[in-house]
Amino acid sequence: MKIAIIGLGLIGGSMAKAIKENTDHIVYGYDRKDTVIKKAQLIGAIDQALTDNLLKECDLTIVALYPKAAVDYIREHQEMFKKGSIVLDCCGVKQIVCSQVEPMALKQGFVFIGGHPMAGLEHSGFDHAKKALFKNASMILTPTKGSVQDVEKVKDLFTAIGFTNLQIATPQEHDQMIAFTSQLAHAVSSAYIKSPAAIKHKGFSAGSYRDLTRVAKLNEDMWTELFLDNSDYLAEEIDGIADRLKEYSAAIKAKDGETLRSLLKDGREKKAMIDGEIF
Amino acid sequence: MKIAIIGLGLIGGSMAKAIKENTDHIVYGYDRKDTVIKKAQLIGAIDQALTDNLLKECDLTIVALYPKAAVDYIREHQEMFKKGSIVLDCCGVKQIVCSQVEPMALKQGFVFIGGHPMAGLEHSGFDHAKKALFKNASMILTPTKGSVQDVEKVKDLFTAIGFTNLQIATPQEHDQMIAFTSQLAHAVSSAYIKSPAAIKHKGFSAGSYRDLTRVAKLNEDMWTELFLDNSDYLAEEIDGIADRLKEYSAAIKAKDGETLRSLLKDGREKKAMIDGEIF
Repeated sequence: MKIAIIGLGLIGGSMAKAIKENTDHIVYGYDRKDTVIKKAQLIGAIDQALTDNLLKECDLTIVALYPKAAVDYIREHQEMFKKGSIVLDCCGVKQIVCSQVEPMALKQGFVFIGGHPMAGLEHSGFDHAKKALFKNASMILTPTKGSVQDVEKVKDLFTAIGFTNLQIATPQEHDQMIAFTSQLAHAVSSAYIKSPAAIKHKGFSAGSYRDLTRVAKLNEDMWTELFLDNSDYLAEEIDGIADRLKEYSAAIKAKDGETLRSLLKDGREKKAMIDGEIF
Repeated sequence: MKIAIIGLGLIGGSMAKAIKENTDHIVYGYDRKDTVIKKAQLIGAIDQALTDNLLKECDLTIVALYPKAAVDYIREHQEMFKKGSIVLDCCGVKQIVCSQVEPMALKQGFVFIGGHPMAGLEHSGFDHAKKALFKNASMILTPTKGSVQDVEKVKDLFTAIGFTNLQIATPQEHDQMIAFTSQLAHAVSSAYIKSPAAIKHKGFSAGSYRDLTRVAKLNEDMWTELFLDNSDYLAEEIDGIADRLKEYSAAIKAKDGETLRSLLKDGREKKAMIDGEIF
């Protein structure tokens, strides 16, 4: 296949490196920074800089940009994608992207598949990209209109570069689940670290503290966009945990051991059930 | 030294195993379950079952019980501890323990040092105890009345069994910090897992989800007691994060990107500062 990768940041750059490392596909790369394109070519992460003419030959275009930029790129290039070729985005929100791109795909005759590689680092940019980023990771696909054969094609590619779990969902299911598993975790972690006690914790820190605050180190530009693009589901999740936390503090303030114990027991049992340990 | 260990659960059992593995001290053990004492003796985690007469000979008594049980044990045995010997508890709260035990220590002539080994597992009991539990862990000591020599004695012991960070604090400092680094993490994790979306998350889970929910798997009896024994500090921490979370959801609902970005940026910067990366 000829593959175009748009945006050679952490995700796009890692895709390029992983594809060149693990497959024989030809990779053309584009990035708004010229130096990144040159660097990618020099280290063999791409075969060539992408041009409009090369884009027209591609069987698969992977758009690894933030949501708004991804939709804009696809809109501006919609007439250039080869008929029947696949265009796949890598955004962490799917409804807002899929709902805008699908009409273009139908009109222009390309196949759009929404994608969300569940991999990331606390760092961004091509310099942090690595060919093993997707090893054992999950890829979520939201192929609302793509044929089974088209999905098979990208599945083979993603399996070849390390993904071990491919999940098929509707854009709505994706956004609802990701609000809980990923976005909420980032909001909670960010709010956690702001305790006035945080600055004095050295020597008292435990594994639980480290786990709870790890993802507070985030890229606020990207996460602001992702949060606002999934505002309904995420606001509901945040309000939900805030309200539940107030139940714990109310029981603690009332010295109500029975209620507190049952709140904690319920959490333990839900965790065990969800992890598949009981029931 | 002759060392008594009261309670051969996860912490006391691991202390026994680690002391016998790494030192030449003699260890006498007590547990309310007879079978546990026998098992501990058979595998060499203790030299002998503890008796009242043996307790009177001990240079160090480590009380590894829940807070109320620890205070009760020390109260009931206060006249048996050898004059000048050290009694150390292992409770996760210090003010409530130290304030009750210190008057007994002064009156009876033993030395009380509050201790909190920052190690634990999601499992409890002697069968999960292991000699390497404290490897590279932190031990917090609250030696309000102990002499430097006494603290040196326990420091040498704890260093020998794997602790690499000894932290000295007042009981009040300890309780305030532990409310933030450990207890809050358990409350948040417990509240997190109760989202209605949790049950459907399979295939969508990311490292952030796993980190945020790990400690939801807790022993509700122990944590209820710890939470209630530190109710002021903990309720303040819980209300604090709940209130901060509402700021995030308010910005998200208002589609206020500027406020949301600055909330996330502030969290990222605080995390970096606290981890010592900037400033």
